[in-house]
Formats: sequence, structure tokens, C-alpha cells
Amino acid sequence: MSVTAAQGFTASGIAAGIKENGNPDLALVVNNGPRRAAAGVFTSNRVKAAPVLWSQQVLKGGEVSAVVLNSGGANACTGPLGFQDTHATAEHAAEVLGHSAGEVAVASTGLIGIRLPMDKLLPGVAKAAAELSAHGGEKAAIAIKTTDTVHKTAVVQSPAGWTVGGMAKGAGMLAPGLATMLVVLTTDADVAAPDLDAALRAATRTTFDRVDSDGCMSTNDTVLLLASGASGTTPDAAEFAEAVRSVCDDLARQLIGDAEGASKDIRIEVIGAATEEDAVEVGRSIARNNLLKCAIHGEDPNWGRVLSAIGTTSAVFEPDQLNVAINGVWVCKNGSVGEDRELVDMRYREVSITADLAAGSESAVIWANDLTADYVHENSAYSS
Amino acid sequence: MSVTAAQGFTASGIAAGIKENGNPDLALVVNNGPRRAAAGVFTSNRVKAAPVLWSQQVLKGGEVSAVVLNSGGANACTGPLGFQDTHATAEHAAEVLGHSAGEVAVASTGLIGIRLPMDKLLPGVAKAAAELSAHGGEKAAIAIKTTDTVHKTAVVQSPAGWTVGGMAKGAGMLAPGLATMLVVLTTDADVAAPDLDAALRAATRTTFDRVDSDGCMSTNDTVLLLASGASGTTPDAAEFAEAVRSVCDDLARQLIGDAEGASKDIRIEVIGAATEEDAVEVGRSIARNNLLKCAIHGEDPNWGRVLSAIGTTSAVFEPDQLNVAINGVWVCKNGSVGEDRELVDMRYREVSITADLAAGSESAVIWANDLTADYVHENSAYSS
Repeated sequence: MSVTAAQGFTASGIAAGIKENGNPDLALVVNNGPRRAAAGVFTSNRVKAAPVLWSQQVLKGGEVSAVVLNSGGANACTGPLGFQDTHATAEHAAEVLGHSAGEVAVASTGLIGIRLPMDKLLPGVAKAAAELSAHGGEKAAIAIKTTDTVHKTAVVQSPAGWTVGGMAKGAGMLAPGLATMLVVLTTDADVAAPDLDAALRAATRTTFDRVDSDGCMSTNDTVLLLASGASGTTPDAAEFAEAVRSVCDDLARQLIGDAEGASKDIRIEVIGAATEEDAVEVGRSIARNNLLKCAIHGEDPNWGRVLSAIGTTSAVFEPDQLNVAINGVWVCKNGSVGEDRELVDMRYREVSITADLAAGSESAVIWANDLTADYVHENSAYSS
Repeated sequence: MSVTAAQGFTASGIAAGIKENGNPDLALVVNNGPRRAAAGVFTSNRVKAAPVLWSQQVLKGGEVSAVVLNSGGANACTGPLGFQDTHATAEHAAEVLGHSAGEVAVASTGLIGIRLPMDKLLPGVAKAAAELSAHGGEKAAIAIKTTDTVHKTAVVQSPAGWTVGGMAKGAGMLAPGLATMLVVLTTDADVAAPDLDAALRAATRTTFDRVDSDGCMSTNDTVLLLASGASGTTPDAAEFAEAVRSVCDDLARQLIGDAEGASKDIRIEVIGAATEEDAVEVGRSIARNNLLKCAIHGEDPNWGRVLSAIGTTSAVFEPDQLNVAINGVWVCKNGSVGEDRELVDMRYREVSITADLAAGSESAVIWANDLTADYVHENSAYSS
């Protein structure tokens, strides 16, 4: 299903030879209209990859007719020549597809600081164009994988006759900077670019932007939403926004579930916060605490490390009013020892941490992973 | 040597039975005068352990006659009863030593969220008092170890006849919040409390405060400086400040060198910064990047992860002007590929990263460690 679940889209995924192991590494997504409205959110990392700089320019026009995505190389920190490579990719795709290069977005993922093998990538674009299909969504999702062990897709179908579908990749360098990772969403709803933009920003703010697997923010994060209008239906704005949010949330959870080396998915809910910003700041501080991440890996309900992480934030709270539950057991009450930690059952992959700041009524949920020897191995044994 | 290198001090270290394995766990440091001036800096974590809250009060008076330190329990997040335990410890030490409790500082380290076994700690204070000696500095340094594999001491002797010595513990939860870890420094120089305070704050700001082993800020960080005046000499202020800085720097490097599970000590120097604050922010962001820490462990000069970390900061820089050297090889120039990464030799424990922001003339050095499977094991296999 993936990006071809919605009407009006074709896609493909092929092996262009960018990856040395011969795995699929090039995906193409084409919007066949009748409309080509689009919105995008990108990494807030100030060191941005060439394809991010290019696609930000493309999105200013509010129309995207095709997206070229490659794994096997991030084309980040590659200087003016790297930008020329992205430009040449868009030009070549435009020529093959009969579109304007100014409507071709590009997204890349892989190792930072190496040039892409353009002698393989450009012929790959032509090959991918030849294989475009209304059933190609699955292959496209597979072609954008890097260290992902599974490909990620999600679909919501509205009873009103329109569909939102999407694909995502991401397993490491997985912390949000507005958006995160490579994601392409498509819909056949008839929605203008500004409304797409509003729905996408609202959705990413509480989904991809609250995934924090390893605290490391990528140079290439890109989330695109393309609308073909092929269903002929203009949806209710709230229903459409909820559908986009739902697909983003589904994909975000799949990213956390497949994070490099992780053995636990940690749902961190901060409640009783004075503001939503406080809740997010505290959630992120807990999510990024390496000692806590190790403790969760060891199935140790070490709430002292939660309090230690909360204490580094500027959120409104009093230390002697903090409460912390792990998997439903309030192991810390009023900043001190609470219920018996022996009651906490941590055998399952999902672990829930609730931190009550007792300072208001705002809340937020951040998703994180544990820290494991496998994560260290996967990120030290070779360049990635 | 340690805290008894300077004249006018006695110390001891004993096994009080706080640690279940019977290792030394209680240290006592006594200033026999003639003066008892003191200064202290403490964690900026807002969740502060009971002994930190107590000792901050004590230091307001500018005089400390004794310090009781225990390992085997942090007495953090233990509520009002935990504070009463610290108070009782100071009262008992004062009674045994014939001092006022208001001049007895207390420092604790170990697991957060458990009460101390006062039935063992209080008799231990009496036992430690009975063993006080002008040669007890080494035993005191041993008694404050937790996961430290070695005890840490340092001494500077001035030709002018005065000495600064000290001891430190710390191996995990090792990121600064003004000060970090448990450290006691002593001097026989005759220096008033406000001048001690100035020298200590200046020293910790560029030493302990720039150690960032694992990004995790403790609830118990304490650094104390006690002056006996026993040398009869009032030192030159600049020379004294430099001696204090030198001892702090020495101890800080020992902490990094013994960090939990680490296989590399990483010296991160940020140069060309617009302000010192920018340099520190960038250095800390690099120091805390788990992916980079893994890469360094794998002896992979992955400069893309350095740029990715710099990009998350608010420091003044242009992405296409950043330069990065690893062990002296400028692998990134102008935000892109620089010298051949194969030239970088990373076989040794110390790794040097230089990040040039090309935005000014300020700089800072942050010390960090790599991220290893041993760190994960040490912090997931049991509560600590």
C-alpha cells in the first residue's frame, strides 16, 4: 500500500548500485494529478544535507510532481558539488518524466560526508521511472531502508472516499528537529498546499517530533505530503488533519519499534506540567538520559535516574512534589520512595514512564528507546 | 598525600558497614586550624540530595571544621527523613570532635532513593574519628570510591611554603552542573573564605564543569575547599588560584580516565567561536552525541557526526565554514570533505577533536568519554 494507497500516485523501488551490497537503494514517487499540491517539513539541524536545501526551495512553490529518494548516501556535508549532484538528479528525473525540475523533490539517507555515485544514480532514475506502477509503494518503501530491519508503511482510508498513505525509513540518528527521518505521505484528497502544510505541521509536532530514540538529530530529516486530488473530494479539515496525524503516529511508532539495537520502546508521559513546553522539555531530558536508558535495558525501575534527569530542566516543579510511575507502579511519591519497586514488571518490550510534575494540567508524550550493547556495536563497528 | 598533604589537616577512611561488600565507605576530614575558612560549589541539578542541602547551609557561614563523606548511598530523594539523617550525622560528628554541627559538612554518594543505614553510619563516624591521622588522606580517598576503579588524589606545593591537595571520586553520572562529583580540597595557605570561594569557582568553571563523561548530572555533586592557615602564609591571589585550578584539572582528568566502561578519553576543543559560551555549548553537544561516542569507540573518525552535533546548537557559525580535525588531521574543511580520513590514527586512549567554528577567537575544552558495551553493562546489570 504505502505511498500508492491513494489514487493518482505511482511509485517504484530499484537497486541502482549505490549500495555496495546490491540491495534496493533508489525510490521514485510520482503524483499523476490532477493536482500536485504539496507540503514539507525538514530537519531543524543547521547543518542540512544538499537534498534538504534543494527540496526546501522546491516546496516554496507549493507543488511537487515527483520525489526521488536514495539510500546508500546522505549527500550531507558535501559542499557545492554535492548540491550540484542533487540538482542534476532533479533535472534528470524531470527530463525522464516530462516535468519541471522545480517540482521534483529529492531526499537522501546514508553516510554523511561522501559524494553520491552519480554514474549509478542517474541511470537508476531512468530505470525507476520505467518501473513506475500503481502498486509500487511497497518496493519504494523497501528501497529507502538503511539500517532499518523492516520497511514501514501506514494507511488511513476515510469513509468519505479519500485516503492518506505513507512510508518511512529511520533507525538511528533518530531524534526530532521539527520533522525527522525520510517520510513520504500521499493523499488523493483535494487539498490546497497551505492546508496541507497546516495539517502536516500539526501532525509532525506531536508525532515524529516527539520520537527521541538516541538524541541524535539528522542532517537529512524530511517529511513530504503530496496531494493528487484524484478522489475528487475535498475533506473536512479536522478529519483530514486527524488522518494525517494518525498515519504519522503509526509510522513514528514503527520507527521506535525498529530503532538500532533497541530492546525496549519507552513511552514517557509527562503530566501535571505548567505548560506543554515544560512537559516536552522534561520528557526529552528523561528520554536522553543514558543511565536511565541503560537501567531500562536491565529491567531496573531506577526512578532516581528519572528524578536526576528532571532536575536538569528549567520546567516548573518542586523537587519534593514529583511523582514517578514505571509501568503503572508509583515508585516515587513526593520526590521520595513510593510504592515497592519489586511490584514493577518490566519483562515486555514496551515500558511506560509517567512523570507527574504536580505543577499544572498540561502533558506530552515522548517515545524513546533503551541503550544497549547492540546499539553500541551497530554504531561503532562500521561507519553509518 | 591527598587531603592531608597540607598542614593542619587529619583524615581517615574506614569500613562502617554501609556497603554490603565490606569495602571502606566512610571518610572523615578534619581541619585543625588555626583557621577554618571554607568554600564550596554544588550540583546545579534542582533535585539535590539531603547532604547537598545541608552543606550549602553550612558553607554560608564560611567556616568548615570537618567533612563527613560516605559512599554506599547518596541519601538523595529520601525526603525529610533523609535530611534528618544528614543532620544527625553532622550532630554526631560535632559531638565526637568537640566542634559545632553548623561547621560540619556532609557528602554522600551511591544509589539514589534509599535511606542510609544510620545504625552503621553513626558508630562509623566515632570509629573514623578515633583513626584520624595526619597521614590518613589516602585512606579517606579510598573510602569515598563507588564504581571508581582507582582512588584519585592530587597535590600542588608552592615554593612559598603552602600546599593545595585534594581527593575526588566519580566514575558515572558524570556531567557537570557547576561542580561535579565529591571532591575535598585542603590547603594550609591562610586565605579568607571569600577569596577561597573566588578561587574555587574560577577553578571549577574550567575543570570539573567541563568534564562530560555521560551527560548525566548527579544529585550529589560537591566540591569543598578547606583552608587551615597552618603554613602561616597568605599566598599571592593569582598563584593560589592557579594552584587550585591545577589540582582541580588534575583530578578532573583522573575522573575522565576512570569513567565507567570507557575505552577512550576524548578532548574536544572548540576554537574560532564568537563567545566562550558558544564554544562550551558546541563542545557539550559534541560530547553528548551518542553516535559520535560509539564511532570513537570503534576508532572511526566519523566527522559527519561531529557536524551533525554542531548543527543542533545555537552558536554563531556558517555550515559551509566549519572545520574539524581528529587527532590533528583536518578531515572536514569548509563543511565538506577535507584531508583523507585514513590518515587518522586512533589506536590510543586519548582522542583529540578540534572543531573550528570560524566565527571568532574564543575557545573552550570539554572532556568526554566514548560509549561502550561495558558502559551499558555496568549501568544495566544492577542498580547504581
